[in-house]
Amino acid sequence: MLPLKNMFLLTVGMTLLVLYFVWASQLTEVARRFAHQENVFMCHITLEDSRGKQFTGLPKIYFVTPTYPRREQAAELTRLGQTLMHVPDIHWIVADDNRSCNAMVVKLLKKFGIPFTHIASPMPEVYRKASIVPRGVANRRAALNWIRKHAEKGVIYFGDDDNTFDLRLFEEIRDTKKVSMFPVGLIGDYAVSSPVLKEGKVVGFFDSWPSKRKFPVDMAGFAVNVEFLLTHPNATMPYKAGYEEDHFLRSLGLTLEDIEPKADSCTQVFVWHTQTSKREPPTIKIGSQLDTSLKDLLEEITSLGMARVSSSSGVKSYITKDGNTKTL
Amino acid sequence: MLPLKNMFLLTVGMTLLVLYFVWASQLTEVARRFAHQENVFMCHITLEDSRGKQFTGLPKIYFVTPTYPRREQAAELTRLGQTLMHVPDIHWIVADDNRSCNAMVVKLLKKFGIPFTHIASPMPEVYRKASIVPRGVANRRAALNWIRKHAEKGVIYFGDDDNTFDLRLFEEIRDTKKVSMFPVGLIGDYAVSSPVLKEGKVVGFFDSWPSKRKFPVDMAGFAVNVEFLLTHPNATMPYKAGYEEDHFLRSLGLTLEDIEPKADSCTQVFVWHTQTSKREPPTIKIGSQLDTSLKDLLEEITSLGMARVSSSSGVKSYITKDGNTKTL
Repeated sequence: MLPLKNMFLLTVGMTLLVLYFVWASQLTEVARRFAHQENVFMCHITLEDSRGKQFTGLPKIYFVTPTYPRREQAAELTRLGQTLMHVPDIHWIVADDNRSCNAMVVKLLKKFGIPFTHIASPMPEVYRKASIVPRGVANRRAALNWIRKHAEKGVIYFGDDDNTFDLRLFEEIRDTKKVSMFPVGLIGDYAVSSPVLKEGKVVGFFDSWPSKRKFPVDMAGFAVNVEFLLTHPNATMPYKAGYEEDHFLRSLGLTLEDIEPKADSCTQVFVWHTQTSKREPPTIKIGSQLDTSLKDLLEEITSLGMARVSSSSGVKSYITKDGNTKTL
Repeated sequence: MLPLKNMFLLTVGMTLLVLYFVWASQLTEVARRFAHQENVFMCHITLEDSRGKQFTGLPKIYFVTPTYPRREQAAELTRLGQTLMHVPDIHWIVADDNRSCNAMVVKLLKKFGIPFTHIASPMPEVYRKASIVPRGVANRRAALNWIRKHAEKGVIYFGDDDNTFDLRLFEEIRDTKKVSMFPVGLIGDYAVSSPVLKEGKVVGFFDSWPSKRKFPVDMAGFAVNVEFLLTHPNATMPYKAGYEEDHFLRSLGLTLEDIEPKADSCTQVFVWHTQTSKREPPTIKIGSQLDTSLKDLLEEITSLGMARVSSSSGVKSYITKDGNTKTL
């Protein structure tokens, strides 16, 4: 009896072990897929231009802005939106690195009267743990997919929410045939990054971080024709911090001869990589019931993502009158 | 003979000593005056509005921007100018902390079509050595003096070149009777600074750095009527970092009852104290003669104050082509 019983137990044990490994590997696969999952939520689309600008018949500019929730977000989008208000025939694609659609962002974008698409495109979990986080990639990929579905012609440009754009830039990029390029100010150790021309042809790049890139340029330093993009259905941007531009341009099969130099043969600066100082939103401790305008103001700055309010923790707060303070 | 000779020598010696002290004290006085000297250079005035905006008959806004030479200056003035382009009936006073008129700044300001005054108003030498430098005070004082001479009515507002202004702000401040106030975002530990209202009246201030100030507000948090300013000929801004707003508002004889709350009873944020990250302009080492577009690009970024070029020192530079670098 014993050997038979042992045999039976061994078989059961082995089966359980196999089942466990199959289950565990499936779980790992699910976790892996989940970690790499690109979730995209369409939050809002407005095709109507309510700025009273006449239709010019110019090629449309698809201005892609990756953004993410932070203390400075509302200010940055306000400043950028007011710049874009000057630009005719534009469609603004704002892709937010957010797990859901942020009502504050939609409300803010509607004010400008510019046609826009608002997407929530959170970075896949796996990249959040990277040593150098590839910020803005999921957003730009989502925007590219949107353009592939909704646009037939026009020009794509990637413009971050804290960069500075001279209005002349938009006139320059509008007639891009394949890929146009131009200098970007305040980049790297040279304070500029640009293609270098000789007799009208690109002979190289001036960029302080070449890093074996074929196209050592900044994301704000080029524009792409939509029809040209559509002829390259596999063109995409990788989750590889620092190499997004190079891989994307390579995936378009671009050669140095294809590049269309802009901004007076790459001698003028019409875009700057300005960066806004960032701070964490504070938690403000309000221990008492508010019966003043401060109640609504704190609700407003909370909805703008600028601060949080707590009754039990955070930075101590007070109201001042005639040099005397009263704790809230 | 000897006592007489000694007497004579003593008298001569004493006289010389007295003369030396008189001379030295005069020198000190000259040096003191020089160190405190407020030099103001009028660089350019354009009263014409070439934006094609119709005259609205609204009170004019005198928008005072203190600025100073730095790597980010051209970008900041470009971004701000493009915001102000939306605002009718505005006169932009740009006061540069510079020992002479910067041709780049005039050229840049002319582009916007906005009426403007360009002043060079260097900070007096003595304050450059202060532990906390009172930056922007000489500029604002120069602008105030210009307004006293050239304006009879309208509204004054102090707007830094890196702040963010929602266009609604300009509508709010335009009908200021004496002094209007409103919240400023991204200030201090609360991420906001604002007057606090109860039943429409100012009952105090919400600002994380009260510091015994009667008016603990930010420079971007108030606007002043020109006629009201003119009735206070001695009102001025002190060279005291952190206390400029308070002393200026006190010198206007302002009371809490005088304050006109704006921005929906101080519950909305229409201006943000955004700050742009700063870096020193690099010196780029170019050891060879340039025969490419880079020559003109480097001249351009030098004139914009973004970098310097040297043939003998600075950051080593190269051109990249197909992943290969060539030292310049």
